[in-house]
Amino acid sequence: MQENNLNLRQKFRQEDYTGTTAGMAADYVQANVVILPVEYAFDFLSFCQANPKPCPLIAISDVGDCALGNIAVELDIRTDLPSYDIYRNGVYEQSCHNINSLWQKDFVTFLIGCSFSFEQSLLDNDIKLRHLEENKNVSMYNTSIMLKRYGFFKGSMVVSMRPMLASDAIKAIQITGSMPKVHGAPVHIGHPEAIGIRDLSLPDYGDSVNLYQYELPVFWACGVTPVAVIKAAKLPLAITHTPGCMLITDIKNHRFYN
Amino acid sequence: MQENNLNLRQKFRQEDYTGTTAGMAADYVQANVVILPVEYAFDFLSFCQANPKPCPLIAISDVGDCALGNIAVELDIRTDLPSYDIYRNGVYEQSCHNINSLWQKDFVTFLIGCSFSFEQSLLDNDIKLRHLEENKNVSMYNTSIMLKRYGFFKGSMVVSMRPMLASDAIKAIQITGSMPKVHGAPVHIGHPEAIGIRDLSLPDYGDSVNLYQYELPVFWACGVTPVAVIKAAKLPLAITHTPGCMLITDIKNHRFYN
Repeated sequence: MQENNLNLRQKFRQEDYTGTTAGMAADYVQANVVILPVEYAFDFLSFCQANPKPCPLIAISDVGDCALGNIAVELDIRTDLPSYDIYRNGVYEQSCHNINSLWQKDFVTFLIGCSFSFEQSLLDNDIKLRHLEENKNVSMYNTSIMLKRYGFFKGSMVVSMRPMLASDAIKAIQITGSMPKVHGAPVHIGHPEAIGIRDLSLPDYGDSVNLYQYELPVFWACGVTPVAVIKAAKLPLAITHTPGCMLITDIKNHRFYN
Repeated sequence: MQENNLNLRQKFRQEDYTGTTAGMAADYVQANVVILPVEYAFDFLSFCQANPKPCPLIAISDVGDCALGNIAVELDIRTDLPSYDIYRNGVYEQSCHNINSLWQKDFVTFLIGCSFSFEQSLLDNDIKLRHLEENKNVSMYNTSIMLKRYGFFKGSMVVSMRPMLASDAIKAIQITGSMPKVHGAPVHIGHPEAIGIRDLSLPDYGDSVNLYQYELPVFWACGVTPVAVIKAAKLPLAITHTPGCMLITDIKNHRFYN
């Protein structure tokens, strides 16, 4: 299987594919990627430690290291994502398919858990996911849930929402509660207005999905949170994966169960 | 501690106390008690096995045995509950403080887990319980959730309800999900009408409690279920504990975590 994952990463490296990694390498952990100058690394790491539900850390590179140890065979973090987003002074500048020309010796790479892993576990337990059924992106919302501030980094939590019948919601809470490295148990269920969401049909990111009778909206901390926080911090330069275009690792999802 | 529990049971044996055991021996398992002629024992056991959430079996006596092994020191099941309820042909006949005169050599005793154990775990995790705050019995409701039938025994589930904010409900699902011997994870959350409950302010058993803004009603399978099922089966003779007057065992609650 690692050969398949390696093949995928090399396809991205050769820029033969530059789209979403959703549905690829289903049994393996995919990761949110944040790349920052070392000057900001301690504050960002401390911020992640203080806010583990939206920012569950999987790995941190050495300063200037592009390979990240044994996370992924023959990894080069500068080329092995399908697409990167570049932010300067908090403003999105462009997306690109490698960051070779932008690389700095003082860069530190952070890998943060992604909901793709827990979604696979939910599907494996016969819990249907509406956004997949409707062939859409998951609905994501800004909330009033304040994050713990550290140094440059502060803000409020972004959440993803999946509608479920109560019986599935109860199962999903138990399943994801045992996976703290990929956002863990939901942060809210049932009352969107209690966390500052006025209208479920108007997500701040992703797509709107249907919510049927007797279903409850179930909210998980979302990996968009660190990207929103990095933008707000207005760092001179920061690089992330393009939403949906994750790093495919060689770590099996089941290693992330408690 | 077992000496204290023994002292409590002997107080009940001497009929010095005949009330509820709520709040007593907080770290120890309390049990629902069902006593039936052996003729019905296999069907009842099979029914419990098929419906583990409302009927989580802790122990089954040998035929005619009053001591139940090492569940409780010096136990005599005929005298060591504060109060017993007698049913004949499915009709409640009376309550009494011992069953010496009713005892039959063909009786089998079933011990079934009780929500007192998981309530203690919730309190230990700083989750407040409204009925305790309001000094009431927990609210219980008949539902449309059908049980799996076995032989004489059939019907629908009785549930208990505790109002909680979403954050506590999520924690409570994780905590009780790890305690399958005392009803396990909730069976429903959020939409009473989805399980056949029309009006939360009119419980079928226990007391009504307040439900405040942004709280969700959280429903657990309830130990009243087997009693309701036994009544409906119209057995010539059946004996249970009087509601709230449980068997205090010498088993620590924490042994019931998964």
